[in-house]
Amino acid sequence: MTSPHDAVEVIITKRDGGTLTTSQIDWVVDAYTRGTVADEQMSALAMAILLNGMDRREIADWTGAMISSGERMDFSALSRPTADKHSTGGVGDKITLPLAPLVAACGVAVPQLSGRGLGHTGGTLDKLESIPGWRASLSAEEILAQLETVGAVICAAGDGLAPADRKLYALRDVTGTVEAIPLIASSIMSKKIAEGTGALVLDVKVGSGAFMKSVDRARELAQVMVALGTDAGVRTVALLTDMDTPLGLTAGNAIEVAESIEVLAGGGPADVVELTVALAREMLAAAGRDDVDPADRLADGSAMDVWRSMVKAQGGDPDAALPTARETHVVGAPTAGVLTRLDAMAVGLAAWRLGAGRERKEAPVQAAAGVTWHARPGDVVRAGEPLFTLHTDTPERFGRALAALEGGYDVSAPDTAYSPRPLVIDRVG
Amino acid sequence: MTSPHDAVEVIITKRDGGTLTTSQIDWVVDAYTRGTVADEQMSALAMAILLNGMDRREIADWTGAMISSGERMDFSALSRPTADKHSTGGVGDKITLPLAPLVAACGVAVPQLSGRGLGHTGGTLDKLESIPGWRASLSAEEILAQLETVGAVICAAGDGLAPADRKLYALRDVTGTVEAIPLIASSIMSKKIAEGTGALVLDVKVGSGAFMKSVDRARELAQVMVALGTDAGVRTVALLTDMDTPLGLTAGNAIEVAESIEVLAGGGPADVVELTVALAREMLAAAGRDDVDPADRLADGSAMDVWRSMVKAQGGDPDAALPTARETHVVGAPTAGVLTRLDAMAVGLAAWRLGAGRERKEAPVQAAAGVTWHARPGDVVRAGEPLFTLHTDTPERFGRALAALEGGYDVSAPDTAYSPRPLVIDRVG
Repeated sequence: MTSPHDAVEVIITKRDGGTLTTSQIDWVVDAYTRGTVADEQMSALAMAILLNGMDRREIADWTGAMISSGERMDFSALSRPTADKHSTGGVGDKITLPLAPLVAACGVAVPQLSGRGLGHTGGTLDKLESIPGWRASLSAEEILAQLETVGAVICAAGDGLAPADRKLYALRDVTGTVEAIPLIASSIMSKKIAEGTGALVLDVKVGSGAFMKSVDRARELAQVMVALGTDAGVRTVALLTDMDTPLGLTAGNAIEVAESIEVLAGGGPADVVELTVALAREMLAAAGRDDVDPADRLADGSAMDVWRSMVKAQGGDPDAALPTARETHVVGAPTAGVLTRLDAMAVGLAAWRLGAGRERKEAPVQAAAGVTWHARPGDVVRAGEPLFTLHTDTPERFGRALAALEGGYDVSAPDTAYSPRPLVIDRVG
Repeated sequence: MTSPHDAVEVIITKRDGGTLTTSQIDWVVDAYTRGTVADEQMSALAMAILLNGMDRREIADWTGAMISSGERMDFSALSRPTADKHSTGGVGDKITLPLAPLVAACGVAVPQLSGRGLGHTGGTLDKLESIPGWRASLSAEEILAQLETVGAVICAAGDGLAPADRKLYALRDVTGTVEAIPLIASSIMSKKIAEGTGALVLDVKVGSGAFMKSVDRARELAQVMVALGTDAGVRTVALLTDMDTPLGLTAGNAIEVAESIEVLAGGGPADVVELTVALAREMLAAAGRDDVDPADRLADGSAMDVWRSMVKAQGGDPDAALPTARETHVVGAPTAGVLTRLDAMAVGLAAWRLGAGRERKEAPVQAAAGVTWHARPGDVVRAGEPLFTLHTDTPERFGRALAALEGGYDVSAPDTAYSPRPLVIDRVG
């Protein structure tokens, strides 16, 4: 059997600004997954895609080829509609934790298949694993059963979904080819389409702590992903949300779980509540259940009930104490005034360096590490009042974490006016 | 010891259109040679360099780093000045074979360290290995001794010269990153500067059968290489020469040796003689010996004497019959008229497919395979008169070779005017 294409031909087509055919894309994704196209060939192609782009048809073909590299799940036997949410990654972004049980409490099943964190944005599974006993790995049968009985699952995406994406993502991470819209969009959407959700809400982050630094780039990514989902029969919408400032008051693992439980208990930081409810409304509308107001289900405790059932179903103890860090370090406000800037990237890097994130794949994370901030932009602070608490089990990390925070916030004169940009910047869909 | 850089940082700098520092370049070339920067990282960087370019300082640093990856030779103890020639690769380009002994016959030593062919352009060592007994591998001591006694050496470049280039070249070949001017220029010049020649003449090919398809791109490459050589203390000039049409009347191995011997005997195709003499004049001038006319040394047989000594010194028998192909296939002229086009790429591909070149590194070549053409552009041909003879030991190759030739030549009406572009298009230096 002769091969219909060869890797150099495909690379050169894209390198020289051409458009890849469906046949070229099917071949190169399949051959890469099987190992007959080498890592060094795929990374050269990825760089050419990053620099020369892909049109919508190429992106759809690339996504389809990644879906075809593995199996697909099917939730059509469930008694309830399904809706999922995906965030492109932000600092302090624990929204999935209150959101999944909240939407389930409104009658829509949430199959949230997640990944682990790499870099300065945390991973949902890493956060949940700080709950004693909780396990991330479920079989397809366990996922289906839990969706039927509890209504929400947050677990690890199985190895069978889009294996091409797993291999390609690991490659992009070490070759400077992460930030390509065609590759980001096809990576996210291939997994979500293969997962089999009926509706999907995308939370596309914009700002210093996000992959997308500008609203224009974020909107482009959102449009590409919404089109991919819609064409594949998944009702898809996207919100563009702010990530210049980290979400809530915590970035880490156990400390973000604690903050999520506050939200489920009817409290918690206003921005976390606002975004959780906004995303829940979109998920319910996309699943055809806009007759229910999720704010009511936060208030009446039913979302908390689902949370407790969900944690228990996966072996976790919802009443167990969360781990706390062996050492803490407090940073006081340098002067009295108004906190006018709190940079998401600075906070994310600090939390990462304290041990909340991993420096390489397969490395462990510290459950209790992270950063708590005691004021949000717009808040008045007094000189010397605690502004940050840093948590870690390994105090030699404080130095580099403090260096990351340096220059990452501004305390301005007490009478400075502060006008934040809205948390939800735009909607695409 | 902590590393001053990491691969992703270097890749992203170039990906985003930045300029690499000397420290980044030294680090990445050294780390790649030692294997701590992986192939997939270097290929992504190579693609970013190809698409975003490098400035002169970066190219000079990259070249310097590749030279530093290995050893350098030193010919300063020789009693004669040294001059070398490098061709960027063309079809039927056997010029090194008559040129090296010719320049040596004029009193300038020629240390021609060569590579093997890959793709449609032949390799000088592959051609010479069709001479019974001839060997390409010499030690540094043997090279020096032969330069002193015979005056010319054509041999394999040792593994010690610019090992970074060897590794990078093999990678570029399979990742679609060959055609980058900074990488081509630094690859050629790192080896030639490390080789230690005092003067260097570059034959930069332009046209369908060359890497550089346009005169502008070829001139840019020539200017970069001349600057690199000059800055390193090597007297360097470049000729831009035509490669729309293949050189001479043969493309292959043994058949090109036979044509070279005709030139050394005072005959041979006019274009091969013209280019050999033109390059010899440049080499002699760069070595300070422009008092000698190389045309005289072709006519008086002294170049042939050096050729015979050179072949013998490397174990070859200059009187042995050259191998001939087991099978030949003749293509006749389709109509009577004037041959107005003979495409170098078509002829090169045909010769390659007949077995004159290798499809992958380390594969053997056929000594007798290749293409002979019996007319050159401008010549009048009669209908049915032999236009090409194809040579191979493996007749199943004729089909694909004939397909390569198809559309590769035009026979126009007998009264068509033909005005060729000059063989030497420009001079840089």
